Amino acid sequence: MITLHHSPTTRSFRIKWLLEELGVPYHEEVRSFYNMERHDPAYQKVNPIGSFPTFEDDSLVLTESGAIINHILRHHGRGCFRPEANSREEAQVDEWMYWSEGLFAVHQRIFWDHCAPPPGCILDPVPSVGEEARRQAIRYAAMLETALREDGWMVGDTLTGADFMLCFPLFLANLYGWFETLPRIAAYVGRIAARPAFQRAIADTVVCMTEMRKGTPEYPSFRGTETLA
Amino acid sequence: MITLHHSPTTRSFRIKWLLEELGVPYHEEVRSFYNMERHDPAYQKVNPIGSFPTFEDDSLVLTESGAIINHILRHHGRGCFRPEANSREEAQVDEWMYWSEGLFAVHQRIFWDHCAPPPGCILDPVPSVGEEARRQAIRYAAMLETALREDGWMVGDTLTGADFMLCFPLFLANLYGWFETLPRIAAYVGRIAARPAFQRAIADTVVCMTEMRKGTPEYPSFRGTETLA
Repeated sequence: MITLHHSPTTRSFRIKWLLEELGVPYHEEVRSFYNMERHDPAYQKVNPIGSFPTFEDDSLVLTESGAIINHILRHHGRGCFRPEANSREEAQVDEWMYWSEGLFAVHQRIFWDHCAPPPGCILDPVPSVGEEARRQAIRYAAMLETALREDGWMVGDTLTGADFMLCFPLFLANLYGWFETLPRIAAYVGRIAARPAFQRAIADTVVCMTEMRKGTPEYPSFRGTETLA
Repeated sequence: MITLHHSPTTRSFRIKWLLEELGVPYHEEVRSFYNMERHDPAYQKVNPIGSFPTFEDDSLVLTESGAIINHILRHHGRGCFRPEANSREEAQVDEWMYWSEGLFAVHQRIFWDHCAPPPGCILDPVPSVGEEARRQAIRYAAMLETALREDGWMVGDTLTGADFMLCFPLFLANLYGWFETLPRIAAYVGRIAARPAFQRAIADTVVCMTEMRKGTPEYPSFRGTETLA
């Protein structure tokens, strides 16, 4: 029995996309990232820090989306979306999965913390710190632009874990116009966004972001909820 | 033929430790992280952004240490340091490998950028931003403190990729006294540091950090070299 604890705008849409692509049945628990729902006692029992995603497969609990993607592909993937064992492509999938979080998303997160409108930002944002992080993220994205083909997916002709990892930071960065001078990345995000399974996974995030942009919401900043937790 | 491009104080000591533990022969290329050596034309050909590690195995080039660790264990590990395929432990190794970079090291890096003495810090550090990141990193470390045993390694009784990933942020954070109230982590770092192979991998980092603390060095900040690159 699979349970996905999901919150719109968070990394959990990676996992939702993968489960939707595979057609694997799952139970979904949805909470807001921007009020105290993610720190309620029921969720604290499965994830004390209130992050998303949390993935439960019977008694196995995982919170890192890279580990969740690998687990799903090994145990529920029926051989889909995985390169041949011990191939060059297997190493390249790992490389881009780690790159996604370790090099690109780290700078994107600093931008978000300091430059996003409330409730996304931290309590005492320093816009210049966020702007410098944005510049670095776009600079590192040039590595991806060079590696991407004009068609297909990150590693070869079929989706792999690399695409499911990259979708999160790239889809959100693309909404902010970061890839105007990086046409291969922009086209790649477009190919992801065109897939029906991705559209099912992202629909609530798009609604949430539209609402957040309408005006000042009535909940504290997410770092405010960190302090309260 | 394996070449490891290494720089003291950087993530490349993870890979050096692993190769030393396995007794795998490798050619080592050493450059400084804190002057322009990492942006010299010879290194730009293998790694345009000047990060470390860069790992070459014949024509395969990898720059993400998680991917490098997995590749080495698959192809040069002779079965060492890997849990059984499709086991629960395999997922847990992945979980802590991703946690290491995605949750802990991201906050540690922000601390380093804003609070480290030159040349480690960025050009315009904001100490309060670094202090908040330090607080978050130590808060997240409580997850690790809960998961660690009083003996053995991160996942079970033998070293795995999780230990080789965690050694980088934890060893450096421990030098800063972050684990004074987290005794299991402190003891775990002690077990890592006691291993002869780790001591061979970390010796030049210890020398480099001692030199850096002696006074103002004659090279620009690392973010300074980013701007120049």
